[in-house]
Amino acid sequence: MNNIKKAAILTIGDELMIGQIVDTNSAWIASFLDQHGWQVTRKLGVRDDIPQIMECMSLCLEAADLLVMTGGLGPTSDDLTVDALCQYFDCKKVWHEETWDRVKEILKRLGREPAEMHKLQCYQPDAAEIIPNDQGSAPGTIFRKGNKIVISVPGVPNEMKHLLKDKIIHLLPKGNPVEHRIIRTAGEGETVIAEMIKDIEASLPTDIKLAYLPHFSQVTLRLTSYNNALKKELDHFEQQIVERLAKLVYGTGDINLAKAIGGLLRERKETIGTAESCTGGYVSHLITSIPGSSEYYLGSVIPYAYELKTSLLDISTDMLNTYGAVSEEVVTAMAEGVRKKLGVTWSIATSGIAGPGGATPQKPVGTIWIACAGPHGTKARLLKLSRDRMSNIEYTAIASLVLLRKMMLDGRA
Amino acid sequence: MNNIKKAAILTIGDELMIGQIVDTNSAWIASFLDQHGWQVTRKLGVRDDIPQIMECMSLCLEAADLLVMTGGLGPTSDDLTVDALCQYFDCKKVWHEETWDRVKEILKRLGREPAEMHKLQCYQPDAAEIIPNDQGSAPGTIFRKGNKIVISVPGVPNEMKHLLKDKIIHLLPKGNPVEHRIIRTAGEGETVIAEMIKDIEASLPTDIKLAYLPHFSQVTLRLTSYNNALKKELDHFEQQIVERLAKLVYGTGDINLAKAIGGLLRERKETIGTAESCTGGYVSHLITSIPGSSEYYLGSVIPYAYELKTSLLDISTDMLNTYGAVSEEVVTAMAEGVRKKLGVTWSIATSGIAGPGGATPQKPVGTIWIACAGPHGTKARLLKLSRDRMSNIEYTAIASLVLLRKMMLDGRA
Repeated sequence: MNNIKKAAILTIGDELMIGQIVDTNSAWIASFLDQHGWQVTRKLGVRDDIPQIMECMSLCLEAADLLVMTGGLGPTSDDLTVDALCQYFDCKKVWHEETWDRVKEILKRLGREPAEMHKLQCYQPDAAEIIPNDQGSAPGTIFRKGNKIVISVPGVPNEMKHLLKDKIIHLLPKGNPVEHRIIRTAGEGETVIAEMIKDIEASLPTDIKLAYLPHFSQVTLRLTSYNNALKKELDHFEQQIVERLAKLVYGTGDINLAKAIGGLLRERKETIGTAESCTGGYVSHLITSIPGSSEYYLGSVIPYAYELKTSLLDISTDMLNTYGAVSEEVVTAMAEGVRKKLGVTWSIATSGIAGPGGATPQKPVGTIWIACAGPHGTKARLLKLSRDRMSNIEYTAIASLVLLRKMMLDGRA
Repeated sequence: MNNIKKAAILTIGDELMIGQIVDTNSAWIASFLDQHGWQVTRKLGVRDDIPQIMECMSLCLEAADLLVMTGGLGPTSDDLTVDALCQYFDCKKVWHEETWDRVKEILKRLGREPAEMHKLQCYQPDAAEIIPNDQGSAPGTIFRKGNKIVISVPGVPNEMKHLLKDKIIHLLPKGNPVEHRIIRTAGEGETVIAEMIKDIEASLPTDIKLAYLPHFSQVTLRLTSYNNALKKELDHFEQQIVERLAKLVYGTGDINLAKAIGGLLRERKETIGTAESCTGGYVSHLITSIPGSSEYYLGSVIPYAYELKTSLLDISTDMLNTYGAVSEEVVTAMAEGVRKKLGVTWSIATSGIAGPGGATPQKPVGTIWIACAGPHGTKARLLKLSRDRMSNIEYTAIASLVLLRKMMLDGRA
């Protein structure tokens, strides 16, 4: 086993501690450190409060040699991280002319005048190495004390990423990269998957860890080893699991379902479009989040209102009146209609009651029809969900991608 | 000052510590506890490792009387939370027949057979109060020791929320609700806003705290007091800030920009639709995320491919060839075209290069045109962004909503 380098992450801000925003920074930092061979053993969140920030810094440094802190570097009165750092490292906050020059430069680029307030971010701890930030006003700082390293960067995500990636990581001691193998599946739950591979799991050496990460109708499996000597074994077990789970596996490594489907479409030189009612553009958003999706994604129609189902997709008023917009007949007609209208190989359609309003006695909230149309025909499915609006939308989008992938692989409706 | 009740949150799972997923649970729990008068003073994240889980439990309980833990309750081998709880509270894991009955019941509803693996979640700590989970197999547990309370719930978001909201919160001592006033602005940055209200900020009593939360072209201001006697003062300062910032304020309290615009549309009995190219449905997704949006949102057209701009929105090939799809002329024609086609009062259009591909020397990645059309005409704006694809998409969507709101309030193009 290699000597593991341990890191901790401390996120600072009242907005995180009252749940006003979700902390996406610490996930990015954890993944970034992990890739560079630093094992994150502790994550802490704390309020904008100097004694509490200092206490949490101590708790982090008891468990790790590297601490990455984000947040609390803005120009407003609730930003206290620089003061906490100065007290922790017993140093002074001093005027940093280079930061002021940089701030003026950034403002000039934006066509704006420097204000008195912009000066506040130019006072920096004199015990720190100051790291210039090309994307915003607050610089990053690095403190070194004994074998401990403390890094402080702004909480603005693009600035944080820029500083760590472009300016800071190469200044740190090299870690020992951890080996992961990630296997992504869709269409079955965690328990079914675990049953399917239980003999493989039982045969894993103790140095290789298997984890299950379920999310809606997807399960991600992760094999991990901190022992570099086990790379071949990791490959071997990854292959065993991939073979066993067969078509349930949509990819390995850094991929999601939309990207996997994009890969299939690109390979086959096929195209896709959507007709979304209850998902309101979310399926299209998932598809177009993938760089290069314009190669295979042509477009969508979102006929949210009843009348637009007729005017945009030629669904007959008769059919709408007879079956209702949330029905197998209408969702099938939507999928087939948009496929024809956009001239795409494959189409996805959704129509349902995402909630909380819009329910009828026959069609409670969560009654959602999805359909996919392709060269071999059309297939529709009824979902009966019982979640909140956003989860219903998200689940429906994923389920429609799962259905599409299955049809693409099966080669028949 | 009231006696503040302090809480901590501990999230468990390797997937969080290597950054494979973003921890959304702790934000929800923090907000939920805050609303119920529990101040979250510490948030920790830890790996699936029994000694580390126990150590982090201690760190949480040193700072708080209530600890809410999530994760690590699944049926697979990497789920170790129940074992950690048993060791921490020095108790035994015993068969819990009621949980088994409930698991069988849930599986029956799903039309599935119980497997051997499902039994693993039916062994529970004998020192805990077991809280039945109506939405999944793992129950919640409550431990009480001296004046400390420890709650463990599954990491699956809907199960976690269900257990805390419907089953657990009323079993806890009542906290002292904190008073917040939230003021939401769009269109100016943090520094400008802070300058505009600096005299009001300087006049705040020490018991009232003001925080700034910038996100893209939005800034949320939060006034907080832990002293219930200051409710009137909070209202007073909220009103002062709202009046000072005037049209920059799009709402107060639990609202976002899409919801605020929805409110305006509903009030005026007006409607909206979008024609999205580079945002690929994301603007539509933001609008339709709001419950009741079907009252004013009629639909969208997403002409991602060049040809669909012509076939779906009647943009002439001449115009496309002369100006290119990413141009003021085309985005204006898209906004006006979709407004007419869908018969809506207001429309939003986007066309640009979200990246990382698609750039030309004249139009680098991040060159994005947005336009809004309404009863008084059309307005277009050029954005020059320099972020990653997802941030470019998100920023563009927000900027287009900001432009729309401005036009709705100005009553002219």
